[in-house]
Amino acid sequence: EDLLRIGDDAYSSRLLIGSSSYPNPQVMMDAIDASGAELVTVAIRRVNVQSPAPESHLDLIRKGGYRVLPNTAGCYTAKEAVLVAQLAREALDTDLIKLEVIGDDETLMPDVEQLLKAAKQLIDDGFTVLAYSNDDPITCRKLADMGCAAVMPLGSPIGSGMGIVNPYNLRIIREVVPDTPLIVDAGIGTASDAAIAMELGYDGILLNTAIAEAQHPVAMARAMRLAVASGRLAYQAGRVPERIYAKASSSMEGRVGS
Amino acid sequence: EDLLRIGDDAYSSRLLIGSSSYPNPQVMMDAIDASGAELVTVAIRRVNVQSPAPESHLDLIRKGGYRVLPNTAGCYTAKEAVLVAQLAREALDTDLIKLEVIGDDETLMPDVEQLLKAAKQLIDDGFTVLAYSNDDPITCRKLADMGCAAVMPLGSPIGSGMGIVNPYNLRIIREVVPDTPLIVDAGIGTASDAAIAMELGYDGILLNTAIAEAQHPVAMARAMRLAVASGRLAYQAGRVPERIYAKASSSMEGRVGS
Amino acid sequence: EDLLRIGDDAYSSRLLIGSSSYPNPQVMMDAIDASGAELVTVAIRRVNVQSPAPESHLDLIRKGGYRVLPNTAGCYTAKEAVLVAQLAREALDTDLIKLEVIGDDETLMPDVEQLLKAAKQLIDDGFTVLAYSNDDPITCRKLADMGCAAVMPLGSPIGSGMGIVNPYNLRIIREVVPDTPLIVDAGIGTASDAAIAMELGYDGILLNTAIAEAQHPVAMARAMRLAVASGRLAYQAGRVPERIYAKASSSMEGRVGS
Amino acid sequence: EDLLRIGDDAYSSRLLIGSSSYPNPQVMMDAIDASGAELVTVAIRRVNVQSPAPESHLDLIRKGGYRVLPNTAGCYTAKEAVLVAQLAREALDTDLIKLEVIGDDETLMPDVEQLLKAAKQLIDDGFTVLAYSNDDPITCRKLADMGCAAVMPLGSPIGSGMGIVNPYNLRIIREVVPDTPLIVDAGIGTASDAAIAMELGYDGILLNTAIAEAQHPVAMARAMRLAVASGRLAYQAGRVPERIYAKASSSMEGRVGS
Repeated sequence: EDLLRIGDDAYSSRLLIGSSSYPNPQVMMDAIDASGAELVTVAIRRVNVQSPAPESHLDLIRKGGYRVLPNTAGCYTAKEAVLVAQLAREALDTDLIKLEVIGDDETLMPDVEQLLKAAKQLIDDGFTVLAYSNDDPITCRKLADMGCAAVMPLGSPIGSGMGIVNPYNLRIIREVVPDTPLIVDAGIGTASDAAIAMELGYDGILLNTAIAEAQHPVAMARAMRLAVASGRLAYQAGRVPERIYAKASSSMEGRVGS
Repeated sequence: EDLLRIGDDAYSSRLLIGSSSYPNPQVMMDAIDASGAELVTVAIRRVNVQSPAPESHLDLIRKGGYRVLPNTAGCYTAKEAVLVAQLAREALDTDLIKLEVIGDDETLMPDVEQLLKAAKQLIDDGFTVLAYSNDDPITCRKLADMGCAAVMPLGSPIGSGMGIVNPYNLRIIREVVPDTPLIVDAGIGTASDAAIAMELGYDGILLNTAIAEAQHPVAMARAMRLAVASGRLAYQAGRVPERIYAKASSSMEGRVGS
Repeated sequence: EDLLRIGDDAYSSRLLIGSSSYPNPQVMMDAIDASGAELVTVAIRRVNVQSPAPESHLDLIRKGGYRVLPNTAGCYTAKEAVLVAQLAREALDTDLIKLEVIGDDETLMPDVEQLLKAAKQLIDDGFTVLAYSNDDPITCRKLADMGCAAVMPLGSPIGSGMGIVNPYNLRIIREVVPDTPLIVDAGIGTASDAAIAMELGYDGILLNTAIAEAQHPVAMARAMRLAVASGRLAYQAGRVPERIYAKASSSMEGRVGS
Repeated sequence: EDLLRIGDDAYSSRLLIGSSSYPNPQVMMDAIDASGAELVTVAIRRVNVQSPAPESHLDLIRKGGYRVLPNTAGCYTAKEAVLVAQLAREALDTDLIKLEVIGDDETLMPDVEQLLKAAKQLIDDGFTVLAYSNDDPITCRKLADMGCAAVMPLGSPIGSGMGIVNPYNLRIIREVVPDTPLIVDAGIGTASDAAIAMELGYDGILLNTAIAEAQHPVAMARAMRLAVASGRLAYQAGRVPERIYAKASSSMEGRVGS
């Protein structure tokens, strides 16, 4: 079977999903169900983990039988992110952490210096770290080399819906990080974006806004589930080469995802 | 149910598939099966329709329970194409015809003058015409206005695998041809290309090389089946707008498929 | 010297310019001057050619020492276009005609059937025809083969400012029309668009809106003059190959203009 | 006059040029002359600065009257880069330094952690730092905020000739770094690439391979000179908006550089 392995666990689904911005909790639960996701990421704040209210997102997701992937959204420094991760581990009894350390609250792009520092500390402290990164090959390789369980470059900024704006960098990252799971996290806007990421040989997709803020979140969740499966199969199937026309003498093989 | 209507018939599958270039007949039949296609297009030559040999492609496809969509591949003039269509109708007892009239055997791009002429004659003669066109909005609208059952602009040249090279024209075509089925025919290289076409509001996809010449045709057929379903769902679900980052003041809504 | 030859004449400038939509006549004349253009295209209507009013555009352009290239903008049929061309020839004493036959007044895209018919008639009638076409290689080759003095595919729709949306088709057109001057007409939005067209081996650029409706038309005219010269030089200089990174094993040579 | 200000100096030319990989020294000098560049960057090694041999590149460039911009190419750590910068300052009597700290010798992409560390030390030590960066907005803003005289994001990897692969990030960088000179350094392949960068509001271009390894370096140098001037003018002129066709109801204003 074609499983996604993260840390000590394996998952049938290659689609990880977020839990914010849905019209209401019922739609969220229906969309998560339709997506086929097994891992659902939840932003951790002190208040929501220590005693999650009945009917809180956290409570609903756990009751739904999904595995919670706590995340450090909203943290600007390694110190903050490490504290939130520790809080999450204690409250939720999990070593998993989706590490986000952002540089500002406009672009929501990662602060690479703080990210690398936090990742190092969390790995040393026994966490299974899934690191949200920019699409810089050098940074992604460092994250892999220090032992992150998954490296998660963005396709484009969080919430932008712009898809994979730089497929060339994603391709280089796959080349320089051949053995650690790579997941495109952020920027996916519609189904084809997810398929493109998988066709580049990525191991999975993490998304939130594309489903939660679609006009029909449950239909989009279904679309994304199929898109991830489709892109994975297409990658494994070995696509035809690109030529400017069928009998052209030179192939276009370098062209990717554009 | 979300059916594709062409002429008097309706189909559950929005993926139409070709029958040439497969490694062998068994792979062809397995790939067609995996694709979920109901309509399979076959190039018509005098020799192959009048008494299709047992185990010919035509024979296999009919035995497999698929509907044959005869095509006029290899015709350079309206006259030739009309003759081939008539031959196909007589031999196969079908009014369906996928009309191709090409301008040369290098680029395999349509000769628009001859195409329009042939389409007119075939429609007048009672055929249900699915017309392979270039991506010119004016030509596509003419084909729709004269009564083609489906208009089928290319994404890129036949056999090129370049995908949708001009999503802007495809979008304009959808605007100016709101009511006739539009099918992207030619150029699809991998799963995401098919998804992009469906996300543009197209009614279906016709492809051949992308599956037949993939390293693993059956896996790619499965990928394409999922991709078409995925793109259709994403179109119906209503995707999120594009912004350069989530909190950017201006949206990027005009950007399509790139 | 590197001259652009159209019909029996040769020009130092490879930038042809339109005369509509300027803020006022003075800005028009200053922009034309700054552009370095020698050929200025003017839409012909019965009223404006038979006795061009003093201070009309036509009058100003002729007084400015520019060569007028009459055009058939606004014609929807071959018949109309031929009549306008004849009117222009008689009134302006020139065989030059920029032939436009459009399919509708929304997209302003050419009607290829009518265009080919009109081009044939005008060539038979002794005109030097510069034909505005879509980016279809088959149509462009027909126009060249019948004897057009220049074939002028669009980069994107007239007035769109979208630049070269399908560099692949433009490249194929250059391949199949090696000997007739090719000019990108329509769609240029900014300087780099003009440079890209020239880098594809095109012989010239025709534009109007990009200069006339820029915030500062004269500055943009200067930019376009430099861009055309720059793109021409870069084409002749032989650019470096594309690689995903300098030491990558496979080149990206097929990728164009994107 | 429209000058480029870096540190305490101002330059008429917005094109900075490298000095490696030319076919021979004469072509190098001719190309530099044709480019109009005033600043020429030279890789510093202990051997070449302490007593530059007559007819060495360094010697030729200085005799030619150009200002030398020493660079730290080939350094992998902040420590190395700082040492090379100090060596350059002492030998060449200049505070200018183009800071490169790369992550590996395949992709030649910057190591952001080491880059930031080196930039900080060099600024504290009184250098005028032009920092070669990746296209990460957060990193670029940090470099600007700490006092770099210019921030120089890549368009694509060094020597790749891929041009501006992520115009969206470059646009965001311009937004978040409004006041420090921004120069696209690396990846420029041909004239239009340079024009696109300038149209995005960048202050200048630094390139080497595109000229040095073109088939005709001097012609390409001339092309680049014009392209930079052209793109600058186009930026200042205020381009027309993009629309899918002229009368389309919604503009495409978000689309950039593609």
